[in-house]
Amino acid sequence: MLYVVGLGLSDEKDITVRGLEAVKASSKIYLEAYTSILLVPKERLEEFYGKPVIIADREMIELESDEILKNAAVEDVSLLVVGDPLGATTHTDMLLRARSLNIPTRVIHNASIMNAIGACGLQLYNFGQAVSLVFFTDSWKPDSFYDRLKENSDLGMHTLVLLDIKVKEQTVENMMKGNKIFEPPRYMSINTAVSQLLEVEETRNAGVLAGDRTLAIAMSRVGSDEQKFVCGTLEELSAQSQETFGNPLHSLVIVGRRLHHLEVEYAEQFAIDKPNWRKVAKTVYGCSLEDES
Amino acid sequence: MLYVVGLGLSDEKDITVRGLEAVKASSKIYLEAYTSILLVPKERLEEFYGKPVIIADREMIELESDEILKNAAVEDVSLLVVGDPLGATTHTDMLLRARSLNIPTRVIHNASIMNAIGACGLQLYNFGQAVSLVFFTDSWKPDSFYDRLKENSDLGMHTLVLLDIKVKEQTVENMMKGNKIFEPPRYMSINTAVSQLLEVEETRNAGVLAGDRTLAIAMSRVGSDEQKFVCGTLEELSAQSQETFGNPLHSLVIVGRRLHHLEVEYAEQFAIDKPNWRKVAKTVYGCSLEDES
Repeated sequence: MLYVVGLGLSDEKDITVRGLEAVKASSKIYLEAYTSILLVPKERLEEFYGKPVIIADREMIELESDEILKNAAVEDVSLLVVGDPLGATTHTDMLLRARSLNIPTRVIHNASIMNAIGACGLQLYNFGQAVSLVFFTDSWKPDSFYDRLKENSDLGMHTLVLLDIKVKEQTVENMMKGNKIFEPPRYMSINTAVSQLLEVEETRNAGVLAGDRTLAIAMSRVGSDEQKFVCGTLEELSAQSQETFGNPLHSLVIVGRRLHHLEVEYAEQFAIDKPNWRKVAKTVYGCSLEDES
Repeated sequence: MLYVVGLGLSDEKDITVRGLEAVKASSKIYLEAYTSILLVPKERLEEFYGKPVIIADREMIELESDEILKNAAVEDVSLLVVGDPLGATTHTDMLLRARSLNIPTRVIHNASIMNAIGACGLQLYNFGQAVSLVFFTDSWKPDSFYDRLKENSDLGMHTLVLLDIKVKEQTVENMMKGNKIFEPPRYMSINTAVSQLLEVEETRNAGVLAGDRTLAIAMSRVGSDEQKFVCGTLEELSAQSQETFGNPLHSLVIVGRRLHHLEVEYAEQFAIDKPNWRKVAKTVYGCSLEDES
């Protein structure tokens, strides 16, 4: 049996009881470690499971998936995935291959950022499609997310913006020399994200985002003890130091115009400038809010 | 401390290890039981926790929340919620009240239908806003969901349709007499859902749905051992007996035009009529699929 087990959002205790049982029954345990990362090192998992955990990077998943599956035909194997197992296409592929080899599979679900964003006080019903924002370079600034953002914005929906992480990247030099030397992981900060968003708004100029009129919520380590939310206009967010937003991983929500006054009131506790948070919600978003007491 | 603990989707073992620790530390445990239901009776939970569980219906949450919170000020109290705690507004309200009383709170996330729908093979990125479908009566057929469905459809996005459940409802007679007699729970079937959808299409007539041209995926008990998916055109789905779809709870996904060929291929295993599934995906949705071998 191949178990594909969601680990949830932050540490070893976010696994479900069912997931933990699957892990304990497995003779091999792989941790998928390139579409997202957990907030604790794999040693914490190993100690908690009482078993070794094999880090499966992109290369291993792509090149050795047959071997992983071969084992799953004769014994229990667990593939651990941060968040929910079916957030990314990668694991659908693996399940399709298992099916074609007649290997039984079982997916064990868990929380992912796609539903846990409810923690910021915005209602899941009011979210449109999620988008991903990758690190820009001088020559590569992919901006197709802007079209999705505009679609959501036209409908008044909120947008979850997932920020790039770079794990196990090589420099061009090391890649050319065939050196298996990898750069330290990089996580996109809120400041970088906001700056890239406003850069694309300037180029595309469809009026989707405005520094002083678009509200957003910055999120750090959702679901963990260190969870932190900071909200305000994009301008206010970009004026903060990186420390304000807490440690990575971060995500960002662009607030849509269907904003409800209960959402404004819930998120107000996280606002950089509470009066301005309410003012923009009222004057730009058209929320009916009572005057502040 | 008030813990608001997500139970996940199906049974007592879907709770996270962190959630179970919170429950074990709590002197009072409430189970919210009207926005959704678990697939096992509360006795299974009590046995698993080794503690009594109090069923909190809408009345109790609304009338006695102050008492629940009063206890949480002096001891640990857990409020259990099926799925993820922050899918519904109800629990945001409770957290806001706790905050105003300076009672510390901790939300423990879990899988919900909003992210676990990835199990049907459609990518979460391709979903627009979710909608709810309530039981129609002769005189009450709320159809505002149709506007949301049209918005998603215009963008080519998939739509998760959450189907009504009626728990602890009274007949008009019992309500008028003040009898606290409640009807057995009712869960909307896939057949009813499809029939209501097509009824609204007929009235509103904006061409969002067509019996023989709209693909949909019916889902039963996502995340459980009994999980079942059945897919086809709306017409094909409505021609099936209720048993085809498995036991409640059900949900339905209306497939959007941004359908990717990998999504078609993954879901094909659940199709009522595989050749027609591929044919509609190809001719109506414009998917590039190889001819069947």
